[in-house]
Amino acid sequence: MGASGEEKTHLANAAGQAMFARDRAAQALGITLVEIRPGYARMRMTVRPDMVNGHDTCHGGLIFALADTAFAYACNSHNRNAVAQHCTITFVKPALKGEVLTAEAVEQTLQGRNGVYDAKVGNAKGELVALFRGNSRVIAGEVAPHAHGTGTKEPS
Amino acid sequence: MGASGEEKTHLANAAGQAMFARDRAAQALGITLVEIRPGYARMRMTVRPDMVNGHDTCHGGLIFALADTAFAYACNSHNRNAVAQHCTITFVKPALKGEVLTAEAVEQTLQGRNGVYDAKVGNAKGELVALFRGNSRVIAGEVAPHAHGTGTKEPS
Amino acid sequence: MGASGEEKTHLANAAGQAMFARDRAAQALGITLVEIRPGYARMRMTVRPDMVNGHDTCHGGLIFALADTAFAYACNSHNRNAVAQHCTITFVKPALKGEVLTAEAVEQTLQGRNGVYDAKVGNAKGELVALFRGNSRVIAGEVAPHAHGTGTKEPS
Amino acid sequence: MGASGEEKTHLANAAGQAMFARDRAAQALGITLVEIRPGYARMRMTVRPDMVNGHDTCHGGLIFALADTAFAYACNSHNRNAVAQHCTITFVKPALKGEVLTAEAVEQTLQGRNGVYDAKVGNAKGELVALFRGNSRVIAGEVAPHAHGTGTKEPS
Repeated sequence: MGASGEEKTHLANAAGQAMFARDRAAQALGITLVEIRPGYARMRMTVRPDMVNGHDTCHGGLIFALADTAFAYACNSHNRNAVAQHCTITFVKPALKGEVLTAEAVEQTLQGRNGVYDAKVGNAKGELVALFRGNSRVIAGEVAPHAHGTGTKEPS
Repeated sequence: MGASGEEKTHLANAAGQAMFARDRAAQALGITLVEIRPGYARMRMTVRPDMVNGHDTCHGGLIFALADTAFAYACNSHNRNAVAQHCTITFVKPALKGEVLTAEAVEQTLQGRNGVYDAKVGNAKGELVALFRGNSRVIAGEVAPHAHGTGTKEPS
Repeated sequence: MGASGEEKTHLANAAGQAMFARDRAAQALGITLVEIRPGYARMRMTVRPDMVNGHDTCHGGLIFALADTAFAYACNSHNRNAVAQHCTITFVKPALKGEVLTAEAVEQTLQGRNGVYDAKVGNAKGELVALFRGNSRVIAGEVAPHAHGTGTKEPS
Repeated sequence: MGASGEEKTHLANAAGQAMFARDRAAQALGITLVEIRPGYARMRMTVRPDMVNGHDTCHGGLIFALADTAFAYACNSHNRNAVAQHCTITFVKPALKGEVLTAEAVEQTLQGRNGVYDAKVGNAKGELVALFRGNSRVIAGEVAPHAHGTGTKEPS
C-alpha cells in the first residue's frame, strides 16, 4: 500500500536478483530465474545427467528443489524476508534426462505473515510433472535492504 | 511371507546397493547409505558450500532431497519397485554449511501397494531439522532382479 | 472420449445425485450440492451452533469435511468410483457461527487413476477460509451404475 | 520450566477439560477425551449411522475431525492457546458403521511457537485407519486461565 504497481515490480526484481546472487544452491543446480513479479516467480532447470536416479528419471528431490526455489522467490518478492514452513508435493509424471523443466509459483493468499503459494512444474511439452504447495512465514528484515520504492512496514 | 528375517535383510541390502549404484543424483549430492533394513533406511549428507542459499543455510530443497532419498530406499527395501506419490515436509530448524545431516525413514504402514514412511532429518547434535512424510506406491518389477531369498509375489 | 460435453455434464449430475442420496454424513452436516460438472463441484454449509469449538469458531474438522466433500464429488464426477488417498488443508481465516461457507473443488490433473483436486473454502464476503488439496484414486465400479451417456471404460 | 511433571499433567487436564466444556462440535460428534498429558491426547468416536457416506463407511471428513480434535487437545495441553495452521491426512483403511475409532496425537516437536503433532486413528482391532500430521502455532492467551501450577510465559 502506498507503492505503485510499477514500484512493486521493481522491488520484486531487486529482491529476486539479490536472492539469486547469494543462492549458491540454485546456481549449482543450474536453476535460472526467468520472471519475478509481486507474488509470482518462474524458474527453469535442465535435468542433467547427475540429477537422475536409477530409473534415468529426475530425482524427486530435485524436482522439489526447483518448485521450492520458485516458491521461495515468489514469497520473498514483496521484499520482506519470508521462510518456508511446510511444503507438499505430488509427483504426476517423471521427468527425463535432458528435459527442461519450468516451475511457476503463484501466491494464493498472504494474510499478515502467513502465505500460501502453489507451484506447478511442467516440461517443455507443457505436460504437468508435479504440483507443489508451500506455506511461508514472513520474518524480520528485507531481502534487498536498500531497494527503493517501498513504504512497506513489518506487520505486527 | 516365506522369507526369513535374515533373508529379508539380505534382500533390503541387495536392493539398496542396486539402487545406489544407479542413483547418480544421490551420489552427486554426496549422500551415503548408512543402513537399510526392511521398511527402514538411514542416509547421510554434508551441507556443502554449493548447497546453501542466501542465508548461508542449507537450501530447503536439498534437505527435502536427503529425506526423500531415505524414503525412497525405505520403500524399495522390500525389493519391489516403489515410487513416491505425495510427500510433505515441515522445516523445523535451519542447517548450516558444514553440518552433517542424517535422515532416518521408517515405514508406518504398507497396505497392498500403498505405503507411508516418516523421515526425520537431524543434525550431528541430534537436533531435529525437518519432519518428512512420504506416500509410496508399489509398481511392477523388482529393484535387484536377481537377488536371492525372496518368495515375494506382486500383489494383485 | 466418445461422450459429448453435454453427456458428460449429464453424467456428472447423475453421479452427484446418486452420491448425495446415499451420503448421510453430508446430509447430517447440512451440506448441499450447489453445482457439479466434470472435474468440478461446489458445496455449501452453514456453520451451526453445534459446529463450533471453544472459540465460537467453526471446528477445523468440519471446515475440512466441507472441502473434502466437494473434493469427493468432483473426483467422482466422471461417474467412475474414486476414493480419497491423501489430503492437506491450510486454515487461513476462522469461520464464525452462522456463516455460510462455500467449497469449490477443481480438478488439477487426472492421469490414469490418479487425480489431484484443489478446493477453496470461502465465506459469504468472498474471503478465503481454507485451502485444501486432495489426491484421489479411481477404483472399480461406477457411481451411478445405470446412468446413460457414457462409453467410459475402466483404465487398466 | 519451573513446573514439575505433576503440575504439567495437572495443567494439561485442566486445559483439556476447559476446552471440552466449550467444544460443542466435539460433543455433537460424540467425541470423548480419554486421556491428556503434556504433548499428548487420546480421543474416541463411534461411527454413527449419520456419519457414513454412500459406501456405508465413515466420511473421511469425520475421520479427519476426530484426528484433528486429538491434535487440538495435544497442542493446547501446555495451557497456551494454540491453533491449527496446516494438516495432512492419509486414509489407510475404511471405518465401518458402528466401529469405535481412537485417535492418539503425539507431539513431535515444539520449537518456540511452532509445533508438529502426529495422530494415528485406529479401530477396535488395532488396525490403522488414518495417519494425520498437524502443524500448530501458539497464539496469545491461556486455555484454562485460572489453572494453577504454571510459570509458563508467552514466548517472545
